[in-house]
Amino acid sequence: MRRTGLPPPISRLIDSLSKLPGIGEKSATRLAFHILKLPIQYAESLAKSITDVKSKVTLCPMCYSFTEEALCDICKDEERDDSIVCVVEEPVDLVAIERSGEFKGKYHVLHGVISPIDGIGPEELRIKELLSRLGGGRVKEVIAATNTNVEGEATALYLAKIIKPFGIEVSRIAHGIPVGGDIEYIDEITLSKALRDRKRI
Amino acid sequence: MRRTGLPPPISRLIDSLSKLPGIGEKSATRLAFHILKLPIQYAESLAKSITDVKSKVTLCPMCYSFTEEALCDICKDEERDDSIVCVVEEPVDLVAIERSGEFKGKYHVLHGVISPIDGIGPEELRIKELLSRLGGGRVKEVIAATNTNVEGEATALYLAKIIKPFGIEVSRIAHGIPVGGDIEYIDEITLSKALRDRKRI
Repeated sequence: MRRTGLPPPISRLIDSLSKLPGIGEKSATRLAFHILKLPIQYAESLAKSITDVKSKVTLCPMCYSFTEEALCDICKDEERDDSIVCVVEEPVDLVAIERSGEFKGKYHVLHGVISPIDGIGPEELRIKELLSRLGGGRVKEVIAATNTNVEGEATALYLAKIIKPFGIEVSRIAHGIPVGGDIEYIDEITLSKALRDRKRI
Repeated sequence: MRRTGLPPPISRLIDSLSKLPGIGEKSATRLAFHILKLPIQYAESLAKSITDVKSKVTLCPMCYSFTEEALCDICKDEERDDSIVCVVEEPVDLVAIERSGEFKGKYHVLHGVISPIDGIGPEELRIKELLSRLGGGRVKEVIAATNTNVEGEATALYLAKIIKPFGIEVSRIAHGIPVGGDIEYIDEITLSKALRDRKRI
């Protein structure tokens, strides 16, 4: 987009920034001018940190969260309880739960949620990878920590249905968190409570 | 900052993003995960647009706004009225005024405002550069379009005091914009009105 009074490089930066979620034209303009006034070192380190996440970060082949190494820190950690697996929709949900400090088991990231209206069925998610982990026999409980909206609840029920035949308990984080809310935005205390009050489904 | 469950490159990106104005830890986390899911081309173009603004953009030696070339587009534009100069605090204010479509003269960017409490006097701003432009004799009116807070008003009065001896009229954008507000956030219609209703000081 062409903007009067703005050199093309600034205009291009505003275009790029305004494609990010929650950043409109005015916020993008403010950010672009802020970046212009920053020391060159900071602007370069910001640019490098953006390309670095894309080039250095991959998915952990065990839990499918993000990792810089062969296995992620949580999967590698032998002090964490590998008899309990917390299943989340996205890596950002894992980060929110870690921030609560309540959970000391392992994770599994689905990378989405069952949503027929968007054409996403179980085969589009990391569910068969979860089942092959459960086949190992060490896991005694799976916590379905998907969001508490319709798709999240449906995915939790689907997980319960297919996991119970393994003889593994399936629980659901408690409805201490507001129905319809996104896990990543919940405060730590509510998340702790929701993890403690989980109930069998 | 070290964050449990996050590979260092993601943590570094969150650190960099959360230094930007208006972006806290949670927004930065959301943005970082969004960037991770973007196609590599977009992430690279975002990174490039950040380094480009720093390497390609300089200050116009006439009006001190940002430019990619020797002179900025507005200073080069011979169809704009060079007998009237609108003085703003920051380039972002120029962009806001251009968006209103009301002003067809030239600009001068001070890069700040007189603020004794922050140790910023007239000599820290582009005021002597403004005076040397006015010495040319073509300018008939200067509009003081600094913000309407205490420092902006004081700077406008200071400009009036030093510019009037040149025989040049000094006007102030009208108080149609809320007192204490920042020019860059005002809607186009109010800005148009404020420019039309400017009064002599």
